[in-house]
Amino acid sequence: MSLRIAEIFGPTIQGEGALIGQPTVFIRAGGCDYRCSWCDSLHAVDNQYRHDWHAMEPEAIIAEVMRLTGGQPLTVSISGGNPAIQDFGSVIALGKANGYRFACETQGSIARPWFADLSLLVLSPKPPSSGQNTDWSAFDACLEAAKGTDTVMKIVIFDHHDLNFARNAAARYPALTLYLQPGNPETDPSLPVSAQSLSDRLLWLVEETVGKGWLAPRILPQLHVLIWGNKRGV
Amino acid sequence: MSLRIAEIFGPTIQGEGALIGQPTVFIRAGGCDYRCSWCDSLHAVDNQYRHDWHAMEPEAIIAEVMRLTGGQPLTVSISGGNPAIQDFGSVIALGKANGYRFACETQGSIARPWFADLSLLVLSPKPPSSGQNTDWSAFDACLEAAKGTDTVMKIVIFDHHDLNFARNAAARYPALTLYLQPGNPETDPSLPVSAQSLSDRLLWLVEETVGKGWLAPRILPQLHVLIWGNKRGV
Repeated sequence: MSLRIAEIFGPTIQGEGALIGQPTVFIRAGGCDYRCSWCDSLHAVDNQYRHDWHAMEPEAIIAEVMRLTGGQPLTVSISGGNPAIQDFGSVIALGKANGYRFACETQGSIARPWFADLSLLVLSPKPPSSGQNTDWSAFDACLEAAKGTDTVMKIVIFDHHDLNFARNAAARYPALTLYLQPGNPETDPSLPVSAQSLSDRLLWLVEETVGKGWLAPRILPQLHVLIWGNKRGV
Repeated sequence: MSLRIAEIFGPTIQGEGALIGQPTVFIRAGGCDYRCSWCDSLHAVDNQYRHDWHAMEPEAIIAEVMRLTGGQPLTVSISGGNPAIQDFGSVIALGKANGYRFACETQGSIARPWFADLSLLVLSPKPPSSGQNTDWSAFDACLEAAKGTDTVMKIVIFDHHDLNFARNAAARYPALTLYLQPGNPETDPSLPVSAQSLSDRLLWLVEETVGKGWLAPRILPQLHVLIWGNKRGV
């Protein structure tokens, strides 16, 4: 059964979240049930780009991962779009048989049995600035599906409404390690991102959290944006 | 028994290494057995600054940590200088009794029994660009003292000689997770650091490691330098 894949690229470093800095190959799935206002991966989300997506069998996906890494095992990150739209169970099984580990990032709107086969599940509920609503019962189903798998929560923060959303999410799931990252308003892939403005946004988020005594979340920027801006495939 | 303390500051985020992004209070010990050519903390290293250091009892140190955090438990990072010159056993015991966790960063030149009381020991052997020599038997003694404590290795990279040093260290200690960070040549606290040049150095290091198929180390910048340059106490 083939999957819709927007791109497979790497090895590069994971730019954000729990595995930040770790060499990673990315499998970016095509298609999403959300349309976040500030989406930085529309080429993997919107149907207008679907002709650029590839229908790939699990064997072909893992063959490409192995080609890119020369067969060296590493962490493969399944992202999107929302990869939970599709069934990545066979991809993960085949990759694990070849020594690869898998992480997956999804908003938590669709639960999948294969969450339990991951090394890490990153659930990233979308804050108010995205224009999306979180179905917390669907989110709970994702946690249930991932039982036994290391699971963390990551929330993008653009403003104080987003911070309130993050505080509520943290209160709801105190056992999940929470990562906050400053939102990136500069998502045009043809334009450079200012390293200084990225630094400024990170400072703002540190001041609004740690600086005000909220010591639970980890605050991290997007290193890939710092290095490459919005360039794709890196 | 009092300890020589250069500064206690925070809460801020841990800017580098395994706990990057995590809210942290720093206890910076005064004094060091090394004189790295590119040291960014000379105010905690060189004897010419010793009159700025404070002789503090463990009770006073933990009282200050609790004041800074309003009593909220978090990770306290003991750095320096080389904190292993001194006996932090009582500080750690007292802090743990109040709910705090402790990480320590040291070059691995002096082993201490209290390494076993840490949540994380970061051993950062210094590469050739530092002008220092690593005594690997002392380093092994640190690993032995830290048995049972999560221990990682971190190496600062300025050039290809440093990369070779890191490759040898990785081969010597394959079980230790290795963090590499680009060296910061701009250490004058009175001058700003260019976010763009920091980004350039990170790109260089990613290209020289992951880009050349070395997939073991995690590559991370110094976020505090990105945000604050070389400003102290943040």
